[in-house]
Amino acid sequence: MKPTPAIRRATLLTSAAVALGLAVTGVSAQEKPKDHADGPAAAYEPSMTTLGQIQVEIPGRKPGDPVMTPAEFQKATTMYFERCAGCHGVLRKGATGKALTPDLTRANGFEYLRDFINYGSPAGMPNWGTSGELTEDDVDLMARYLLLEPPAPPEYGMPEMRASWKVHVAPEDRPTEKMNDWDIDNLFSVTLRDAGQIALIDGASYEIKAVLDTGYAVHISRISASGRYLFVIGRDAKVNMIDLWMESPDTVAEIKVGSEARSVETSKMEGYEDKYAIAGAYWPPQYVIMDGDTLEPLKIKSTRGMIYDEQTYHPEPRVAAILSSHYRPEFIVNIKETGIIQLVDYSNIDALKFTDIEAERFLHDGGLDSSKRYFLTAANARNKVAVIDTKEGTLEALIETDGLTPHPGRGANIDHPTYGPVWATSHLGDDTVALIGTDPEGNPDNAWKMVQQLYAMGGGSLFVKTHPESEHLYVDAPLNPDAEVSGSVAVFKVADLAQEEPEYTVLPLVEWAGIAEGQPRVVQGEFNKDGNEIWFSVWNAADLQSAIVVVDDKTLELKHVIKDERLITPTGKFNVYNTRADVY
Amino acid sequence: MKPTPAIRRATLLTSAAVALGLAVTGVSAQEKPKDHADGPAAAYEPSMTTLGQIQVEIPGRKPGDPVMTPAEFQKATTMYFERCAGCHGVLRKGATGKALTPDLTRANGFEYLRDFINYGSPAGMPNWGTSGELTEDDVDLMARYLLLEPPAPPEYGMPEMRASWKVHVAPEDRPTEKMNDWDIDNLFSVTLRDAGQIALIDGASYEIKAVLDTGYAVHISRISASGRYLFVIGRDAKVNMIDLWMESPDTVAEIKVGSEARSVETSKMEGYEDKYAIAGAYWPPQYVIMDGDTLEPLKIKSTRGMIYDEQTYHPEPRVAAILSSHYRPEFIVNIKETGIIQLVDYSNIDALKFTDIEAERFLHDGGLDSSKRYFLTAANARNKVAVIDTKEGTLEALIETDGLTPHPGRGANIDHPTYGPVWATSHLGDDTVALIGTDPEGNPDNAWKMVQQLYAMGGGSLFVKTHPESEHLYVDAPLNPDAEVSGSVAVFKVADLAQEEPEYTVLPLVEWAGIAEGQPRVVQGEFNKDGNEIWFSVWNAADLQSAIVVVDDKTLELKHVIKDERLITPTGKFNVYNTRADVY
Repeated sequence: MKPTPAIRRATLLTSAAVALGLAVTGVSAQEKPKDHADGPAAAYEPSMTTLGQIQVEIPGRKPGDPVMTPAEFQKATTMYFERCAGCHGVLRKGATGKALTPDLTRANGFEYLRDFINYGSPAGMPNWGTSGELTEDDVDLMARYLLLEPPAPPEYGMPEMRASWKVHVAPEDRPTEKMNDWDIDNLFSVTLRDAGQIALIDGASYEIKAVLDTGYAVHISRISASGRYLFVIGRDAKVNMIDLWMESPDTVAEIKVGSEARSVETSKMEGYEDKYAIAGAYWPPQYVIMDGDTLEPLKIKSTRGMIYDEQTYHPEPRVAAILSSHYRPEFIVNIKETGIIQLVDYSNIDALKFTDIEAERFLHDGGLDSSKRYFLTAANARNKVAVIDTKEGTLEALIETDGLTPHPGRGANIDHPTYGPVWATSHLGDDTVALIGTDPEGNPDNAWKMVQQLYAMGGGSLFVKTHPESEHLYVDAPLNPDAEVSGSVAVFKVADLAQEEPEYTVLPLVEWAGIAEGQPRVVQGEFNKDGNEIWFSVWNAADLQSAIVVVDDKTLELKHVIKDERLITPTGKFNVYNTRADVY
Repeated sequence: MKPTPAIRRATLLTSAAVALGLAVTGVSAQEKPKDHADGPAAAYEPSMTTLGQIQVEIPGRKPGDPVMTPAEFQKATTMYFERCAGCHGVLRKGATGKALTPDLTRANGFEYLRDFINYGSPAGMPNWGTSGELTEDDVDLMARYLLLEPPAPPEYGMPEMRASWKVHVAPEDRPTEKMNDWDIDNLFSVTLRDAGQIALIDGASYEIKAVLDTGYAVHISRISASGRYLFVIGRDAKVNMIDLWMESPDTVAEIKVGSEARSVETSKMEGYEDKYAIAGAYWPPQYVIMDGDTLEPLKIKSTRGMIYDEQTYHPEPRVAAILSSHYRPEFIVNIKETGIIQLVDYSNIDALKFTDIEAERFLHDGGLDSSKRYFLTAANARNKVAVIDTKEGTLEALIETDGLTPHPGRGANIDHPTYGPVWATSHLGDDTVALIGTDPEGNPDNAWKMVQQLYAMGGGSLFVKTHPESEHLYVDAPLNPDAEVSGSVAVFKVADLAQEEPEYTVLPLVEWAGIAEGQPRVVQGEFNKDGNEIWFSVWNAADLQSAIVVVDDKTLELKHVIKDERLITPTGKFNVYNTRADVY
C-alpha cells in the first residue's frame, strides 16, 4: 500500500531535521546582539505622510533601524546577493524562499533571524551557521541586515549592455564551413561552475577538447537551430556565443545582460533559424532579444507587472526558462513571480507582439513533450506544472504534481507501458516523481493528468533524465543531506512502470568515481547523441577532485570516469544534438 | 513674407518673459535658507556599496540631506503632488517639465530652485511665488523638498480597486429602454473642474438637466458604443459610469483606478460594443480593463518598461490618451514616457495580446482622421505627431509639427481647399497651428506631411475645433498670459486656407459673456450635434462667475450665454453624439 503523500512528507521533514542536527523550536537565547538602536524586535513603524489621498512612507532612516557601518552594509549586501537572492529575491519579496521585507523581519525580530540563519530549516533553508559556511559574526551581521530595507540595485539597460558587448570575431571573419574534425553533434558542453568556465568534451573519446572562460556558474548551454553556435549564460548574466565551426571553437561574441540571469535561447522557427538570441535576467527583471550572429542587443523588455491572480504589482518578476517555439516565430518566456508565460512574437522586431498567458506563480524550468508541441513547465513553489500548446499559443492545462517543489530541468519523456507518452518531473522537496500523460490524441483519458507517482531515493532531486533509445528513467538527488543519497542516482526500468509500486536500482556513482574526499554530489544525467550512455557529474568542492561518470544505459554498469585537474566543480552538461533537437 | 519659426518663437518667449514681469538671469541673492545640513548647494554624494559587481546606493539619509520635519515633508509632498507632478512626474523623472531628481537639483542648489519656483520661466514653468499662489515660506519649503529623494507613492492594484468599486444600480435593475425624454445625443457633458462635478446640459434648450458628483477635475467624458453610458474620469482617478437611459440619468457604477489618471474609453469594435471599459492611470503607471456594464476591474496592466529609443528603464511611464479601434478588437494606449503606443487586443481577456509600436516619447492626446482609420497623436515634448493605422495596427508616420509642444485634444479634421483632408493641431508653446494631410488614397502627395502652418493669437493654446458641417477652424489660447488673448478665440475660415497667409477673426468671448471679475480663460470649443453651434467655456476662478458661451457657426455671432451658480469652473465639454461617433 502506498503511504499517503502527507505521511511521506512528514517523515521526510523529520528525517531532514534530524539530519541537520537541529531542534527548530526551543533554541536557547544567545548573547545580546550589538548595536541595535531600539532593541532587536522593535516594531517596524515607518514615518508616514500622504500623497494625494494615499499614505506613503517618508524615505530615509526609520525609528528602530539597526546601526550598521558602511563597511558592514557592503559586506552584508554582497553576502545576501551571493547566497540569499536566488531564493528570496533581490528585493526580498520571496519566491522559493520566504519574503524577508522589514515589515516581516522586524515582526520576527533579531534573535529569530539569527537562529534561522544559523540552524536553517527542514523546509529548505540551509544551515549557514552550523554548516560552517558563515561565521558567528557573519550570521549576526546578516540578521541585522535583514532588519533594514533592501538596497535597490541599479537598472541595466541598453547603454550598459552595449558597453559590455564584444564581438571577438565578426561574422565575415568566421569560417563558411566547419574547419575542425570534431563530431560537434556529440559534443558535451559542461559547466565548470566555480571556475567560471565550460569544458567541451567529445562524446565518443571523452577527451576534453577545450576549456573556455565564461561567466560565473554557467546555468545552461543552448545550441542554435543550425547546430553551429553554442550559447552559454552565467549566473552573473554573461552570455558567451561560441562558434563550433572554427578550427579551435571559441567565443566569437559576448555580452552581459544584467547582474543576475539564468536563461538563454535562440530562434528556431523555420525561416528564423539562428536569426535571434534571447537572454532572460533575474536582475533587472527583463529579457533582451539579440542579433543571432553577433549578440548585438536589439530590444529589452521589462517583465515588471502584475501577479496574474492577485493583480498586484511585483517589482521583481524574474525571467526563468525560455523556450523557442518550433511552430510559431515566438519565444516562450517564463516570468517567475507573476506566473505569466509570455509569448514573444519576434517576426517584427520593431513592433514586438506579446501574449500574456496566465499560468501559475513561481514558474521555473521545463521542456517539451515527445511530440515537441507542448511545453511543460514547473510552477515550483505552487507544486504545479503548466502546459502550453506551442502550436496554438494557449494554456492547455495546469496540473498538480502532488509533490513538493517540482524541479524538472527539461523533464523526461517516456513511452509508458500503461499510460502511453508521459513526461516526468522529480521534486526538490520530497522523493516523488510525477508522471503526466502528454498525448491528448492517442491517449486522451490520460492527457494532462498525473497518471503515476514514483518514489525515488529522497528529497533534494534536481533532474530526471531519459532518451528515446533508453529503457530507463534516472533520478538524481544532489541536494539530499544524506551523503549516500546525494552520491548516487536512482534508476527505474520503464518496463517496470506497469507495476503498482515500481522499484528502482541505486547506482553508487561517487563510489564508482573513487572520490573519498568531501561530499561530492551526483547531478544531472545527460545522454550522448546515440542514447546508449548517460553522463553524470560528480560535483565536489572547488579545491577537491570532481569527475564525470559515464554509465552504460543498457547494462547500468560503469563505462568510464573522466577525471582531469581542469574539471573543477562540473555541474550541468549539454549534449549538442540532444539540446538542439529537444531530445530528453 | 512668413517670419521663420525661430524668429517667431524668440519674439513669443521674450513677450512672455516680459508679461511675467521677470528677469530670469540676474536674480539677486536673497536671505540665507534655513535648516540646511551642509549648505544649500552641497554636492549630491550618496553613500555607495556594491551588489554583485555593481555600485548601489545605501538607502536612508544621505550626507547633505536638508533637515525637514515630518509635518513639512507632508505639506511639501501634498503641494508637489497637486501642483508639480502633472508636468514633472511623481518620481520627478521629467516629461513636459524638467527632471527634478536630487542629482540634478543638488547640482543647481537651493537658491536656484527657490528662485525658479518663485519667478517661473518663460519656457512654461509658472511663477508660483510672484503670482501669489505660494507664500515665501512655501517656496522655501518646496526648494528644500526638491533636494531630497522623492517618496515613492504606493502601488494601487486589484485589492485597492475592488475596495473602491461600487455598483449603485446593478445591470438587472436598470431600465431596458430610455425612460426620459432627453435628446441624449445632443447632450453636453461639461466638466465643473474645481467642484468635482459634471453638468449635463441640453444642446437645444441650454438647460442644465443635472449636476452629478464625480472625481476631481474630470479630464474627459467618453460615451459607450451604444450611446447609453457616459464615462468620466477625474484627475484623482475616479471613474463614474452614468446611465443616460434612467429617468434621471445618474452614476450607476464607480471605481478609483489609481491616485492620478487622465483617460477612459470603451470598446467599440463590432461585437464588443459596451462590453469593456478601460482607464489609464498616471500613478501607478498602469491601465485597467473593466466590465463595460459594471466597471468591475478585470485586468490591470503595468506600463513600466523601457523607453523605446534609449532602451533604458522608466519607472513611471504614464498612460495618456486611449482610443478604441473601430477595425480591430483593440484599445490603442499612449504610454507617455516610453513613447510606446500599445495595441491591446481584448478579444480574449484572460490571455491579452499586446503590440508595442515604437512611436516617440511624451505621447499625449490625439484623435482620428476624418476616415476614422488613422489615429493621430501628439508626442508633445518632441514636437511630433505619430500616426497609427488602426486597421493594420502599424505605425504609419511620424511628423514634425514645426511648433512647440503640440496639444491637439482630438484635433480638427478639415477638408482643405488646396490639400484635401487634413488634421490640425495647435501648440502649447507657440502660436502655430499645424495642418497635416491625412488622405494617402486621394491625396498621396500630401499624406502625412505638414502641408500648412497657420499663426493664431499666441502661445498657450489647448484646443482646435471644427465639425464636418462647419466652414471654420477655431483655436483657443487659454494659457496665454495676456488676458485679451486668453479671453478670446481665433477663427479661420476654411475657404481662406487656400491663401498663403490666412487671416483669422477674433471673437472676444469673455466680453460677450459680460464677466468683468478675474481673468477668465476661454477654453475648448465643442460643437452641438448638428454642427451649427460651437460652445466655449469661459473658465474663471472657483469663487468667481464662469459661463458657457454659444456661438453661431455660420455668422460667428453670439447666440447664447449660459450662466448659472452651479457652473463652477467649467472646462471640457463633450457632446454625446460627436464624442461617441468621433466627429471632430
